[in-house]
Amino acid sequence: MKTQVAIIGAGPSGLLLGQLLHKQGIDNVILERQSAEYVLGRIRAGVLEQGFVELMREAGVSQRMDAEGHVHDGFEIVVGERRERIDLKLLTGGDTVMVYGQTEVTRDLMEARHASGAPIVYEAGQVQLHQLKSDAPYVTYEKDGELCRLECDYVAGCDGFHGVSRKSIPGDVLREYERVYPFGWLGLLSDTPPVSDELIYAKHERGFALCSMRSATRSRYYVQVPLSEKVEDWSDERFWDELKSRLPRDAADKLVTGPSLEKSIAPLRSFVAEPMQYGRLFLAGDAAHIVPPTGAKGLNLAASDIHTLYSILTRVYREGRTDLLEKYSETCLRRIWKAERFSWWMTTMLHKLENDDIERKLIEAELDYTLSSDAGRRTIAENYVGLPYDSVG
Amino acid sequence: MKTQVAIIGAGPSGLLLGQLLHKQGIDNVILERQSAEYVLGRIRAGVLEQGFVELMREAGVSQRMDAEGHVHDGFEIVVGERRERIDLKLLTGGDTVMVYGQTEVTRDLMEARHASGAPIVYEAGQVQLHQLKSDAPYVTYEKDGELCRLECDYVAGCDGFHGVSRKSIPGDVLREYERVYPFGWLGLLSDTPPVSDELIYAKHERGFALCSMRSATRSRYYVQVPLSEKVEDWSDERFWDELKSRLPRDAADKLVTGPSLEKSIAPLRSFVAEPMQYGRLFLAGDAAHIVPPTGAKGLNLAASDIHTLYSILTRVYREGRTDLLEKYSETCLRRIWKAERFSWWMTTMLHKLENDDIERKLIEAELDYTLSSDAGRRTIAENYVGLPYDSVG
Repeated sequence: MKTQVAIIGAGPSGLLLGQLLHKQGIDNVILERQSAEYVLGRIRAGVLEQGFVELMREAGVSQRMDAEGHVHDGFEIVVGERRERIDLKLLTGGDTVMVYGQTEVTRDLMEARHASGAPIVYEAGQVQLHQLKSDAPYVTYEKDGELCRLECDYVAGCDGFHGVSRKSIPGDVLREYERVYPFGWLGLLSDTPPVSDELIYAKHERGFALCSMRSATRSRYYVQVPLSEKVEDWSDERFWDELKSRLPRDAADKLVTGPSLEKSIAPLRSFVAEPMQYGRLFLAGDAAHIVPPTGAKGLNLAASDIHTLYSILTRVYREGRTDLLEKYSETCLRRIWKAERFSWWMTTMLHKLENDDIERKLIEAELDYTLSSDAGRRTIAENYVGLPYDSVG
Repeated sequence: MKTQVAIIGAGPSGLLLGQLLHKQGIDNVILERQSAEYVLGRIRAGVLEQGFVELMREAGVSQRMDAEGHVHDGFEIVVGERRERIDLKLLTGGDTVMVYGQTEVTRDLMEARHASGAPIVYEAGQVQLHQLKSDAPYVTYEKDGELCRLECDYVAGCDGFHGVSRKSIPGDVLREYERVYPFGWLGLLSDTPPVSDELIYAKHERGFALCSMRSATRSRYYVQVPLSEKVEDWSDERFWDELKSRLPRDAADKLVTGPSLEKSIAPLRSFVAEPMQYGRLFLAGDAAHIVPPTGAKGLNLAASDIHTLYSILTRVYREGRTDLLEKYSETCLRRIWKAERFSWWMTTMLHKLENDDIERKLIEAELDYTLSSDAGRRTIAENYVGLPYDSVG
């Protein structure tokens, strides 16, 4: 098999890139290690930046998102009983975010892929990337017991943190930066109405909590827990009690509880791999970087990589601008580091930290200053809605 | 001897408080361990917030400052060859800072004290505070070999980090927070014209540098050095060479060098003691808190404590509002922690840090974001000119 762009991974990044390239008439094949059902079963983020929303529209897959997604003009940060609304629209001069689950984004993109007839291979095993530094890279994989070979011009590595793409870059080329936080998020999904119309980020002496939602009838809640906690020790009742204890009284009183649909503990990590290009391979999304979820940046950061890669590849095929390929990594990383910075900052400010020293007091002062100052609130707002996409060339 | 307020320390804090109280008809005596010449010989900061300037005017000691001080509308942050001006006036809607050396402030306040005839005792040895929790505290000290006793209503501890005041609060009452940074500032004072009309804060791979000034003909420069450095290993020539290597080429070319009048290495420290009140004792300035000098906040933070203490004492004596005394510590600390936060943040962003890992990259991204964003620049500007003074009662 032969194509122009081989896309590794059929999560939202790979699917979005595939759809965008397909619309530009650029051939691509998507290879995915898992089944479609498995990919759809992963429960992830649900807050989309404006840039992501516009990219979905550009890809022609925004109908359901525009009909069913909820535009949020703001969110709340609460510290004990102190409630501060971050008015995104006012503070940024009109920008908002869209609440629409990653699962729904993936489903819409899968359906568009199916409708387009463009090739996608699920359950592709033993994916390996070859000759990435040559003009003729190719990918091998196993499907139904057979060894297959996919020849291509370029490889887009959209296969996540544990995928093969990043691992295909030699260790002496790749530089990895990492921090693992000493706590995780215990999340619970339930078919209950959200406690508030907007997200609530709660800092509390018992630990951080987040009230999020997928729709008017489906809620997603999180509480910070030590990494040593086990999900089986958390009954639904214990979860709801803990969550209530961390919310302002008024919100706790309003909280509607119900049986969990899903419950899991996720670790928090900051991670960046540099560079994001190696010959004909381009990493995008979680394959190159992870953010802690506190700023809702993970999926959105993948989308800005995809925007950059899509913009460059389009100009490569239309205008022969192969010189732009060398700018991919630098362009992406400038925005990535700012989003890493924001996610780290929000995580640090809002979580209960172990250190009981001057740093904790300085961080409390940082949150107090930031919430009390118009300029401080604007720094939160403009990062939350997403910094502008950098253009290339 | 008997007075209303015993002021320990004749640095700018103690002198300013004394002058303000005197103008309100509140009796006070200042005790200072050192001689007047020694106090004047200390070379310190030179950037005054608007609040400080207004307090000097309120104290009636602003004539020379208003005539000879230089109003600065902005300053520069440079990173390698990248130069970014922080336009304080534009970003804050009109606020500025005044460049006028601490030595000059102290001299003006000393002269005003002398003119007022209010008592000030220099070279007062063995100062001790007594009965602070009672209604009748008193201070003992030695002067010219005699033991003296000063009875008072209240004691203002303005005697700096190493003074006796903070040490008079029992250890089980006082909570101290501290961070010592792993580097210091090597400073050089010279009678040379400043390299620029405005201050330049330089981040460079060789370390931080600061171009500051006292007047149109006197400059103060600093370079970050490891704490292990000894001032005697730094010839003037070595200092100037090192400074030039850290400035943008254009600034380095313009730098006028000359013999040093003074050269010294100062450590950088963040320190806060809580609470700032113990019975009839009130700590102010360096006695209660130290900031690293990167945000020019040390003297200014002392001034805001003095403003708070002066406001409260005035209402205590005029209106009998002794209830306000209990609010002193909390009122001061709210603003102090924000200034500690700003000084720590500026220090962290602008210095060369030892750690070569993700934190360094995140901090570089923080500086890049902050300088690139209007909201970010406003957070620098509004903290640099000084957050508003909190009012009491």
